[in-house]
Amino acid sequence: MAKQDTTFMDTIVSLCKRRGFVYPASEIYGGIGNTYDYGPLGVELKRRVKEAWWSRMVTMRDDMVGLDSAIIQNPQTWITSGHVAGFTDPLVDCKKCKARFRADKLDDARCTEKPSRTPVENKCELTEARAFNLMFKTQIGAVEGSGSVAYLRPETAQGIFLNFKNVLESSRVKPPFGIAQIGKSFRNEITPGNFVFRTREFEQAEMEFFIPPEQNDHWYQYWRKERHQWYVDYGVNPEKLRLREHAKDELAHYSTGCTDVEYEYPFGWGELEGIACRTDFDLKRHSEASGKDLSYFDPEKKVRYLPWVVEPAAGVDRTALTMLIDAYEEDVVEDEKRVVLHFHPEIAPVTVGVFPLVKKEGMPEKAREIDQMLRQARFTTFYDESAAIGRRYRRQDEIGTPYGITIDGDTMKDGVVTIRNRDTMLQEKVKVAEIESWLRHAIRAWKRPAKKAASAG
Amino acid sequence: MAKQDTTFMDTIVSLCKRRGFVYPASEIYGGIGNTYDYGPLGVELKRRVKEAWWSRMVTMRDDMVGLDSAIIQNPQTWITSGHVAGFTDPLVDCKKCKARFRADKLDDARCTEKPSRTPVENKCELTEARAFNLMFKTQIGAVEGSGSVAYLRPETAQGIFLNFKNVLESSRVKPPFGIAQIGKSFRNEITPGNFVFRTREFEQAEMEFFIPPEQNDHWYQYWRKERHQWYVDYGVNPEKLRLREHAKDELAHYSTGCTDVEYEYPFGWGELEGIACRTDFDLKRHSEASGKDLSYFDPEKKVRYLPWVVEPAAGVDRTALTMLIDAYEEDVVEDEKRVVLHFHPEIAPVTVGVFPLVKKEGMPEKAREIDQMLRQARFTTFYDESAAIGRRYRRQDEIGTPYGITIDGDTMKDGVVTIRNRDTMLQEKVKVAEIESWLRHAIRAWKRPAKKAASAG
Repeated sequence: MAKQDTTFMDTIVSLCKRRGFVYPASEIYGGIGNTYDYGPLGVELKRRVKEAWWSRMVTMRDDMVGLDSAIIQNPQTWITSGHVAGFTDPLVDCKKCKARFRADKLDDARCTEKPSRTPVENKCELTEARAFNLMFKTQIGAVEGSGSVAYLRPETAQGIFLNFKNVLESSRVKPPFGIAQIGKSFRNEITPGNFVFRTREFEQAEMEFFIPPEQNDHWYQYWRKERHQWYVDYGVNPEKLRLREHAKDELAHYSTGCTDVEYEYPFGWGELEGIACRTDFDLKRHSEASGKDLSYFDPEKKVRYLPWVVEPAAGVDRTALTMLIDAYEEDVVEDEKRVVLHFHPEIAPVTVGVFPLVKKEGMPEKAREIDQMLRQARFTTFYDESAAIGRRYRRQDEIGTPYGITIDGDTMKDGVVTIRNRDTMLQEKVKVAEIESWLRHAIRAWKRPAKKAASAG
Repeated sequence: MAKQDTTFMDTIVSLCKRRGFVYPASEIYGGIGNTYDYGPLGVELKRRVKEAWWSRMVTMRDDMVGLDSAIIQNPQTWITSGHVAGFTDPLVDCKKCKARFRADKLDDARCTEKPSRTPVENKCELTEARAFNLMFKTQIGAVEGSGSVAYLRPETAQGIFLNFKNVLESSRVKPPFGIAQIGKSFRNEITPGNFVFRTREFEQAEMEFFIPPEQNDHWYQYWRKERHQWYVDYGVNPEKLRLREHAKDELAHYSTGCTDVEYEYPFGWGELEGIACRTDFDLKRHSEASGKDLSYFDPEKKVRYLPWVVEPAAGVDRTALTMLIDAYEEDVVEDEKRVVLHFHPEIAPVTVGVFPLVKKEGMPEKAREIDQMLRQARFTTFYDESAAIGRRYRRQDEIGTPYGITIDGDTMKDGVVTIRNRDTMLQEKVKVAEIESWLRHAIRAWKRPAKKAASAG
């Protein structure tokens, strides 16, 4: 990792804490591993990322339905899916310092006694590698014993397969169609890290697209393209995105293809989303293990078959982190350094800053009135009357608020406000009655600022 | 429980399964206790319930911010909050049949050997009552041992208290102000039940309102009224809602008052939400246990104090269930029984049904075009071209779709569609270009149908 990039991640982590995007979880008790809480701005950012995914994947499509399945399912689910037997990391212990490492990541690990060295360099006395299951285990009911063991789901996908028949029977869908779900998953990682990139508790946005087997290639290509485009449409720099197709020896035995959407993070290229061809593997396994027929009968072709599946599986936390990192820019305005987040306006946690120019002449009252009008119209706003107007603009630039409305003498006299654009810093006079439609139009017309590509990161 | 009411709950559960609101979780493996998954309509219903709560509690207010804290926090959190020591149910075992019961609910329990009798009636040989903790326990990291024990949160509230100082320092809020959070909580109940009313895994919408101590009574009364009104505003029958103030001996030792918003379910009155005065109990305990000062300094009054808290804590699943039960009505239309859900249009899972009158003369193509136009405008629609138009109306009535748009000969000739109102069943001719604004106006102007109050339940 280059030195400059470490500094950049530190800058992001620090901005997140200072402005209320992301806090270390349980911080007053010394934290708890690599766990984070989303603050007032972070929760709005994540809400918008999820809404952007859901609206494109579900609301705007007529071949998709949503689902929200429980985190704790019957444990047979994870035996069938292969997670109980195979969802493991190989771990080794050091007999001297008692530390535990991933056997396949020893080069990234640091000896606890000599943190400048890897366990290999330090000649740690390592045990044989043993497989540790990554699922969090718990007990259901008040009786402790193996009969009541349950797992926190390590992925949301299986909840979709479990309900395939229920959805077929209650929704009048037919292949090709998809079932989409957003929700938390849990993986007991021994080495979480890189801020919210890899955490033990994380949110997924997964979709299983059920298709006639012969359409596999068509939909695989379709979803690779569609999912890549989604990130670009929501403002992520296409030069920092790539599609990486897995080599044959990387694929699960049942898979016919898998592509990762990767982003170039300050810590290197990392997976943002995977688009995987899962064939009929899951439906077949669940069919066999449950004794329930999960096939689909096509009434037109008079043929019964197990649909194949193409699965785009994205990480919500990673997407939020990516959009934050990618939006970050430092430039110079009026001889001062300006930090600005060029979020897509539908992703920005706050859409409009509202500022009375001065704290007198009725301006604060008028500004509060406009603020309330915008809140009623479901815009997220931030009212700020303290400090010079330039300073108030900077505060909003730093959290990525795309529009700032200033209430000044003209507002009191002629009913016009000044709207400032975060990206261009241009100002425009707009009548109070036209603010809402002006904003809706501006949001639709937003383009990623061109100068950004050169200076991000 | 009256016989008729059991039948009504059966009707609701059956409708939920058949139309895709709620399915039993892990059904193909015989389920897992009283756990449920939300299907295509259920997930949209829950999304809207959460959005209605968030927009009223956060987006529209200037004294509120949001938060999204982790489910697994440092276990010290639950020691401090009192959950490790005191969040228990008293349980007894029957020495004969080995069944386990809640000692304080023996009258509601049924002996497993003679299900017609309670354990008391059957003279079961019960053990002394023992306290069982309701928190789900798990282990963090790959090392098993008491050092790595962690808990799934039993409430979202503590995540807010943990971050009180972080929010104060990063958001420029000051008392009186609130921090709101929606998220999953987990309670290892021995007797979950009544469909999604009481489940082990459930979603909460909680808000902690931090205030100067002397404003306690004012804000307690304010939030009682405000939260009751929210249910009424979203269409719940006020005659089936009541505020129940807890008696002094029901209150926690630190509390100055608590009121439940209750709804009259088919199985009796049940708690929908609690509004509790928590004083400075939580901030004080966390302050003491962590050694971190969680007080607030008021720069105007030059006084430092621990804010007091009023907490409205609602259940998202219960609210969705309540809105569904409350919206249900059976009436007779054209000599046939009609099932209709009179959801508030902002709560209804599908907002618009789109129907070509016949499957020819270009109507399906035109209808698809209008359907896509509405989806792009973020309306949730359902396109249906099969069966007689009356039958298609009934299908949408049964899932509570408030508006149905029919594309007929007039659409092809003059560009006007027919919009049918679910509640009044009146039809109106509207120009295609005006559908969107017609719908937005109708949604804002919606009133709960009057006849409903008499026949619900």
